[in-house]
Order: sequence, then structure tokens, then C-alpha cells
Amino acid sequence: MNTSEFRRRGKEMVDYVANYMEGIEGRQVYPDVEPGYLRPLIPDSAPQEPDTFEDIINDIEKIIMPGVTHWHSPYFFAYFPTASSYPAMLADMLCGAIGCIGFSWAASPACTELETVMMDWLGKMLELPKAFLTENAGEGGGVIQGSASEATLVALLAARTKAIHRLQAASPELTQAAIMEKLVAYSSDQAHSSVERAGLIGGVKLKAIPSDGNFAMRASALQEALERDRAAGLIPFFVVATLGTTTCCSFDNLLEVGPICNKEDMWLHVDAAYAGSAFICPEFRHLLNGVEFADSFNFNPHKWLLVNFDCSAMWVKKRPDLTGAFRLDPTYLKHSHQDSGLITDYRHWQIPLGRRFRSLKMWFVFRMYGVKGLQAYIRKHVQLSHEFESLVLQDPRFEICAEVTLGLVCFRLKGSNKVNEALLQRINSAKKIHLVPCHLRDKFVLRFAICSRTVESAHVQRAWEHIKELAADVLQAERE
Amino acid sequence: MNTSEFRRRGKEMVDYVANYMEGIEGRQVYPDVEPGYLRPLIPDSAPQEPDTFEDIINDIEKIIMPGVTHWHSPYFFAYFPTASSYPAMLADMLCGAIGCIGFSWAASPACTELETVMMDWLGKMLELPKAFLTENAGEGGGVIQGSASEATLVALLAARTKAIHRLQAASPELTQAAIMEKLVAYSSDQAHSSVERAGLIGGVKLKAIPSDGNFAMRASALQEALERDRAAGLIPFFVVATLGTTTCCSFDNLLEVGPICNKEDMWLHVDAAYAGSAFICPEFRHLLNGVEFADSFNFNPHKWLLVNFDCSAMWVKKRPDLTGAFRLDPTYLKHSHQDSGLITDYRHWQIPLGRRFRSLKMWFVFRMYGVKGLQAYIRKHVQLSHEFESLVLQDPRFEICAEVTLGLVCFRLKGSNKVNEALLQRINSAKKIHLVPCHLRDKFVLRFAICSRTVESAHVQRAWEHIKELAADVLQAERE
Repeated sequence: MNTSEFRRRGKEMVDYVANYMEGIEGRQVYPDVEPGYLRPLIPDSAPQEPDTFEDIINDIEKIIMPGVTHWHSPYFFAYFPTASSYPAMLADMLCGAIGCIGFSWAASPACTELETVMMDWLGKMLELPKAFLTENAGEGGGVIQGSASEATLVALLAARTKAIHRLQAASPELTQAAIMEKLVAYSSDQAHSSVERAGLIGGVKLKAIPSDGNFAMRASALQEALERDRAAGLIPFFVVATLGTTTCCSFDNLLEVGPICNKEDMWLHVDAAYAGSAFICPEFRHLLNGVEFADSFNFNPHKWLLVNFDCSAMWVKKRPDLTGAFRLDPTYLKHSHQDSGLITDYRHWQIPLGRRFRSLKMWFVFRMYGVKGLQAYIRKHVQLSHEFESLVLQDPRFEICAEVTLGLVCFRLKGSNKVNEALLQRINSAKKIHLVPCHLRDKFVLRFAICSRTVESAHVQRAWEHIKELAADVLQAERE
Repeated sequence: MNTSEFRRRGKEMVDYVANYMEGIEGRQVYPDVEPGYLRPLIPDSAPQEPDTFEDIINDIEKIIMPGVTHWHSPYFFAYFPTASSYPAMLADMLCGAIGCIGFSWAASPACTELETVMMDWLGKMLELPKAFLTENAGEGGGVIQGSASEATLVALLAARTKAIHRLQAASPELTQAAIMEKLVAYSSDQAHSSVERAGLIGGVKLKAIPSDGNFAMRASALQEALERDRAAGLIPFFVVATLGTTTCCSFDNLLEVGPICNKEDMWLHVDAAYAGSAFICPEFRHLLNGVEFADSFNFNPHKWLLVNFDCSAMWVKKRPDLTGAFRLDPTYLKHSHQDSGLITDYRHWQIPLGRRFRSLKMWFVFRMYGVKGLQAYIRKHVQLSHEFESLVLQDPRFEICAEVTLGLVCFRLKGSNKVNEALLQRINSAKKIHLVPCHLRDKFVLRFAICSRTVESAHVQRAWEHIKELAADVLQAERE
């Protein structure tokens, strides 16, 4: 394909994308296909001679779309939102064209420098403590990771390295393995599974702290675990506090947990993957109070801040902690400007070596929405979740299962898990809307997450009418 | 931005991208900016009210482009290529629009199923042993990782888990830490730094095997290390063999190393990040001989197979080894179809949870080029590197430092490291072309990598004339 054909096909693709977005409401949100549907539809090996673009674009509707779960349909209320906006898509086109790999400053200075400044912009939108920003020429700074899972893992590895160095400095006879055997990390029992996974990858124990009645990690439960583990000879070194859990959007008590971490010399990582975007609104900023105690903080603009996947924003107070865990050649540590803020080599901040020019997406989105536009977007979603909550509360057959703070409503039929499982099964078989469940303690619960950029009150109302109808069927079937 | 504005702006962006690509040869390949150039050019926080698209598109030339290293300029000969093609860019636009997160089959069946089939297509192009493919309903299969670094880490973690389970099955009293303390992994002293990094992250020893005169890992050196380490009580468990090293594109001897790994029950991971793309050509396929001994194999279509970053192709012979290392809930292992090939949940194959619909890029590129088009592309690059090699050989002041097999030429002025450092410094200061160096043993060497999709003989000839002129200056300065 030469450049003039790209001009033509690129514009056709822009129209295809625009048509897809305009028509998405008319597509069934969850596909009808069964496992293995795709293989029989396409050849079993790549063609020797080129296919035409027409062949391919026709195959999109025939082969791909029948198997797509439409995450951006206004009837998609599953998982959490994943961001989608036109400015981010435009930026991604530019990112693909420049196509640089930004592993070091020299590999493309604009890629590194725009990222550093965008992370400062975003940090200021959240009113992050200055210690996390780069512009103050301190040790803090931000980086774009691919996902919150990677951010948690990177933080855990940095904390592990730091703990090993500290313990070996005090007792040089200790081997790394002897220390790792005793290291123990903590998170709430509501934390995302990626936290446990980070512990497995890092080869350290991870213990779940029982959350309180509001599904929050509190000081007392953490203290109890620390005392028990220290008495058993273990070495607590790392705590993940979650703001906005995946199950029910609960918030660990940072103001209680933070001071304990600081006092006990444990690295505190704050994971606000979903909820973080809301903190750009002054009325939600209080939910971030206590972040001043954290060593690292992470949330996903690619969830709820209109920056298409992948863009996971992570800040640390001390860059050398992060880069020291990964940098291989200790002589590099003495490189001029290396950690001065003048030169940043982001390869030392992350698991992969390569990285795309992802800050372009942030730059386009922040500028084309403006902070006020982004705040309005968050507020609209929160309003819609409260609208759904009030609909649920008006129906005495249903109950709300966790406080509705942002865009997620956890609800269920009063009654058995079985009846709620049957309800969810009917909802997802009907395929008019799409939801996923969670467990809160021993209760099977339905999650209604406001997801799409284009979801409006009418969609929420229609979804609720549909749920009520199916609930009536389920309750009727139960009585029979 | 509404959909109708996106139609307009998207088409403008297509033209911007096309213009950029058409005019890239006229841009200076390496930027003039100094560290910190960007921050003073933009506001220190995000705007409250939206900026216009015109503002932003104008700022691209003013703020971004002056700091870009143009990886797709035909005068870029640094690092290794990073892929860029119009079909991949078109696919990425579609990927951004669908915007699904493919962590499980249900999250978007098309995303998972197209990936599985594309990995089979690609595996067949390479004539990978059937044990690595999915279509045979065996235990093998492929996955798209973000980078070769991640593939190496995932393989090491899978091998670590497998070794721990095996040793604990034999000696239940052994703790994980006691085993990890003794585990030792191996790679050649020419392996990429990401291999050492995987060892650091995984908390296991990694030892460098001295390579031979052709910078290849051979049986004898590996055997020697194994015997020494076993005698010292260590437990060898993992070997990374590299096909096409970053320094000089040397090839470890798989036919020697593979059988040792199989016999000694060590996981063999083959990293062909750069060279792998060439194996689609029958005349280069012999370089992959021995892959039948491997447990996992990886290369980067995003380097040299025209699929834009990120797209790192990884295959394993036994999917349960990979998924078993990451899956958290052992009851999941009993899920119906889970490892039957009918349902694949790729989140168990990788470090992050989220993932983009990256197989669309493979599908577009493989179909719009055809296998013959892709082979022609590889052959053209290899031919250009041999053309450069013969130019170097015609000049008695220069020497070739490693065998030229694919698209990389390692060369230097006969003489001191100092004179070669001076030459490279002049080349990169002049900014007409861009190269990076490497060390081969104690020699400072210049790497000339054929990178751009649009590089032609004329560019290589011009680059060589330029290098010769600067070399004359350097040699003149040395004599004075």
C-alpha cells in the first residue's frame, strides 16, 4: 500500500470508525458466538499473494463484529469502563505514524519529555502532593505504565529491592533468599487479584487483611496482622491500599493505614485504578486524602478519563527507588543528569524495554476536553449511577449492597444467591444489556457500572425496566 | 468532539500522517534539542477550557516534531528496526474504535480467537513445529506479548514455578525460598540485558555463558557451567538461547544447546526478537533449526515484520506451564474447556490484565502484503546490508567485526577504540544519519542496521559516502 492509497483507505477507515460509533447502540452488546466460531470463517494460513483492502473491510462485518463484545455500547454496564474518545484516537494515529520507541531520552526526546510534563499536568489536576511531581526538581515523578497490574508489580519489586538492601546493610551475612523468605506484603481482602499475582511473581508472601463492614482496610486489622507476623519472625515491607475496589468500589482507610506504613518503614502503594479519575473533581478529592503517606500512587486514565487503553498513570516520591530496582549497571547510577530531572530514561521505570508515544493521547484529551470538560464527564457518570441506585431503592424486592460513591452500583434481589444467579443469567442471555457479578462476603451480587461515553439517563432507565421484567420472571419461576 | 467533527479531523490526521511519511526523508533524522527543551514550550498545567484542534495540530510541528528521533527515516540505521506499515496503522485505528479489553474469551471473543488463529498463521509461516500451534488441539499455542522482555520474564516465571513444583513433589519439606536460592538460569554473554533483568525480577541467579569466537553459545561452555554449578549444589532450570543478538546478530547454537536442555530438564526459551521475522524466508529458515527442543519461542513482528509496536509473538509447547504460573485460583484449572483450545483466557498468559485487540494488525498486514510481499521485504533489507558490507570491505581502512547474516553490519575503523568513538561522535553530531555503537569483547564497534521500510540502495550509498568523509576527517585529526 503506497501513501496515496493510504490517504484513501485511511479516510474510509475514519468513516468506518465514525459509523461504528454512531451505530453502536443498534448492535447487540454481547455476541451470540460460541467458542471456536472464528477459525472456520477464515483460511487456515496466510495468503501467499496480497488480499485487497475491500476483502478485508468486508470481512470485518462478517468475521470480527459478530464476535465483539461492544464495550462502548451505552448498554454495556460490565466490569469497569474502558476509555474511548475521539481526541485519543486522533492522537493514537499520530503515535502510530511517529512510531518511535521511547526507551531512553535519546531514542526520542519528545516522547520522554511530553510524558514527564503530562504526568505533572495530571498530578496537578488531582492535587497530588508536590513530592510526586517532577517540576519541583525533587526526586518525585510520573510514568505511564501499561496497566495497574504492572504498576503494582513495579512498586512491589522496588519495595523488595529497597528492603533487601536495608536488611543487608544491617546484616551483611543475610542472603537475598533468606530475606525474601521472610518478606511479607499486605492488601485488603477486597484488593484486585493482580496484587496477589504481583506477590507470586515477586516471590514474596502476600497476606489479605480482613476488611471492615464497608469493605475497607482499617488500622486495627492491619496492626493485628503486623504484630502477629513480626512475632513469627516475618518482615512486613509492602502495603497496597485500594481506593475504589473492583468488587464494590470501596475505599481503604488511607488516613489510618498511611501513618502505620510510614512508622513501620513499609512501602505504601495506592491503587486507585478506577476511582482515580474522579479525584480531578474537587468534591471527590477528599477520597484521595492520605496519599501524602504513599511511596507510589497509580490510577488508569484509560479506564475513566477518556484516554484510550493503554495509559496507566503512576507516580513515585523517589525515582531512584524505582530505577534502582531495575537498572542493571551500577555505574549508570553516576551518569550526569541521570536523576536530575533533565534526562529520564523510562526503560528503568518499567518491565518492558519498548514503549509507545502514549503521552500524545493525554495531551490531546486534556487539551480538547479541558479540565472542566473532563470534570463534567465524571460528574455525569456519577449522577447516572445515583439515578440507577434510586431506581433500585424504590423497588422493595431489591437491595443496594455497598455504598454508591462513584459510577458503580452493587445490587441484588433480596433473597438467595441462587435467585440472583438466575437473574444475572437471564440478563446476560437476553443480551440487551451486559453486566458481571461479584461476591461480597457470601453474597452473590450484581454490578451495574456506568461505562460508555455515550450512556444517558434513557439507557439507564431502559436497563432498569429490563432488569425488573426479568426479575419478575425469575421470582415467578421460583414460586412455581 | 462529536462524530461529525471526528470525520473531518480524522481525515485531516490521515493527511498529516501521509504527509509526514512522504516528507520524512527531508527531516533531520536526529533532533537538535537539549534535555528539558519541551517544558518551557507548553503551559505548566492543563487548560480549564478546551483548546481547539487547530491549536493542537499546529503545536505538533512547533513542539513535538523538533524533539522527535525519526525512526522511520531512511537515514535511521540505529538500534534495530521498529515496524511501520500502512495496513498496521489502519488496523490500529479499528483497534482503537472497538476498544475492547481482551483479558478473557467472554470480554470479546473475536479478540481472543483472531489472536489464536493469527499466531497459528504466523507459526506456519515460520514452519514452527506443530507442537507450538493451537489448531492441532494439542497443548501448544501462541500469544501476543507487549515485548520480548515480557516474553522472557513470563517464560522464566513459568520455568521457575515448574521447577519448584517438581522439586517440592520430590522433597515436600523444601520451601520455595530454599529452592529459589539454588535455582540458576543461563544465557550467553551476548544476550540482551532484559534476560538479566528477568532473573533479577524473578529472584533467581542468572549466569552468563562465555560465547565463542562467533559470539555464539556452544555446548561445551554451557556443559562446563552446568557441571560446576551442580557440583556447588545449585539447580539449573532455565536457558535462554538467542537467535540474532542485539550487539551483532549472532546466533547461539540451538542444535547443540537444545538437546542439553532437554536432557537436563531445563526450560529452553528461544529469543529471536529481531531475527525471527527472517525465518519466513526458506533461505533463512535453517537459522531456526533446533527450535524443536524449545519450550517457548519468541520474536517481535513489531521489529521487522511490518506490524507496528506492540506485537511480540510468543509460543509455548505446553500452555498449562504458562497459565499455571499465573493463575490464582486452582479451582479455575478445572474449568470446562479451559485448556482445551476452545476457550482461551489470555490474561493467564501475561503480566498485565488488560490487552488491546492487537491481532487485527497482524491480520491486516499478513493479508495486505501476502507472505510473498513480506518475504520480499525481508530480502530487500538483507540485500541492503550486504551492499553496505561490500562497501566497507572495499575500503582497507575499515573492518567488518561479525558475520553479516541478516540486516545488521558491525564495522569499525581498523585502529583504536578512541578513533572509532570519535567517528561515531562525528556521525551523530552531523545528524545526517543515526547509528548506535556496541562493544564486541574489548572492541568499540559501530552498528549499521537496515531499519526503515523506505530505505533504498541510494540511502545506503549516501550514508557510506558520508561515513567515509567523516572517517577521513577523524583520521586526519588523529595524525595532526
